[in-house]
Amino acid sequence: MKVYGHPMSTATRMVLTTLAEKGREAELVLVDLTKGEHKHPAHLERHPFGVIPVLEDDGLQLYESRAIVRYLDRKLAGTALTPSDAQSYGRMEQYISVEHSYFTPAAMKVIWERLFKAILGGGAPDEARIEEGLKGVERVFGIIDPVLGKQPYLAGEAFSLAEVCWMPYMDFFVSAGGGALLGDHKNVAAWWERVRTRPSWKKVTGA
Amino acid sequence: MKVYGHPMSTATRMVLTTLAEKGREAELVLVDLTKGEHKHPAHLERHPFGVIPVLEDDGLQLYESRAIVRYLDRKLAGTALTPSDAQSYGRMEQYISVEHSYFTPAAMKVIWERLFKAILGGGAPDEARIEEGLKGVERVFGIIDPVLGKQPYLAGEAFSLAEVCWMPYMDFFVSAGGGALLGDHKNVAAWWERVRTRPSWKKVTGA
Repeated sequence: MKVYGHPMSTATRMVLTTLAEKGREAELVLVDLTKGEHKHPAHLERHPFGVIPVLEDDGLQLYESRAIVRYLDRKLAGTALTPSDAQSYGRMEQYISVEHSYFTPAAMKVIWERLFKAILGGGAPDEARIEEGLKGVERVFGIIDPVLGKQPYLAGEAFSLAEVCWMPYMDFFVSAGGGALLGDHKNVAAWWERVRTRPSWKKVTGA
Repeated sequence: MKVYGHPMSTATRMVLTTLAEKGREAELVLVDLTKGEHKHPAHLERHPFGVIPVLEDDGLQLYESRAIVRYLDRKLAGTALTPSDAQSYGRMEQYISVEHSYFTPAAMKVIWERLFKAILGGGAPDEARIEEGLKGVERVFGIIDPVLGKQPYLAGEAFSLAEVCWMPYMDFFVSAGGGALLGDHKNVAAWWERVRTRPSWKKVTGA
C-alpha cells in the first residue's frame, strides 16, 4: 500500500491517521510541494486535479482524502471508524460534510494567512481575511459546542471518521492562533483535548 | 418521514431522488426561500446553518444533503445505491468528493449568474464569473470523460449515490447553457442521457 503525499499536508494526515487508527502502515511516497511535484506529469497521471494525497492499493488508485479514509475503514481490519447504526452513521456523515463545507474553508483562511503564506513567501498576512476566517470558525464552534456537551464525539459515543476529517484542520487552526476561540467553547476544547492526545495523532504529527 | 426543503433546490432534489430510487416518499414541507423562511428561528432550530434540506425520521433530525442520501440508502430497503465491494465504494466516494469540491462550485457560478440571479432580481449576469465557471466545469468534464468511456457510471457498473449527487447540478448547468460543453465530451453526454432519463429523476423534476 502506498500513499503519495506530504507529512505536513492536512489531507495526507487524514489518511495517515486512519491507517494509524487501524494499526496499519503504508509506504509514504513524498510529493514535494515546494518543488511543485504535485503538478508534474507523473503525479497528474495519479491525480488529475494535481493535489495530494493519492492511495495505491491492490491495483486501485484513489484520490480525494475523504474518499480514501472511508475506503480504508471499510477495507481494513481493526476497530471500525464508522458507526454501525444508521442514525450515528448519518450524524458522522453530517459532520464530515460540515467540516468540508463550513469549518475547513473558514479555518484555512486563518491557516493560510498566518502559517503557510510566510513559509511559501507569500507576503504579509491579510488581516481582513483572517477576521473573516475567525468569524466563520466561531459560527461553526457555536453550533457544535452544544452537541459536544451531550456526547463525547461528533457521531455520538465513539470516535469516528468525522474526527479524522476535522483533526488536521483543527491542529493547524489552533497553531495559527485560533485556539483563543476554544476559551468560549469549552465542549469543543474538551473534545479537541480528547482527540489530539490519541496515539494515532501523536504518531502522525510526531508530537 | 419529513423533508424540509424546496422542490427547485438542488440539495433537496438529491434527497428526493434517493427516495424515488428506493421507491419511497416523504412529506415535503416547503421552506419558502423567496420569503427567507430558511433563516426563520423555526428552521434554524432544525438546521443551524440556515439552509435546506433537513430530514426528520424516527426521532432523528439530519441536515447536509450528502449525509442524508447516505443515511437513507443505508436505512431503507430497496436497490442499494452504494456498491458493496470496497473498491467501487471508494470510487463512489471519490466522485462525490469531486462533485462537492470541483464540479459544483464551478457549475454554480454559471447557474447562479444565468438562472438564479434573474429570478431573485440580482441584476445583470457577470460574464467573467460565467467564463470562470465554464472553465472549471470543462476541466472536470475533461477528467471524467475518459472514465465514463470505460464504465457506464462513476463508481463502475452500477448507478450509485455519486450520480444522485451530480444530477441536480448537471441539470441546472445544462439549462444554463452549459450543455454546449457536452459536444466535446461524448462520454459525459451519454452518461447524462442515461441518468436524466431515469424514472426517479423524471418524478423529482416533473419532466
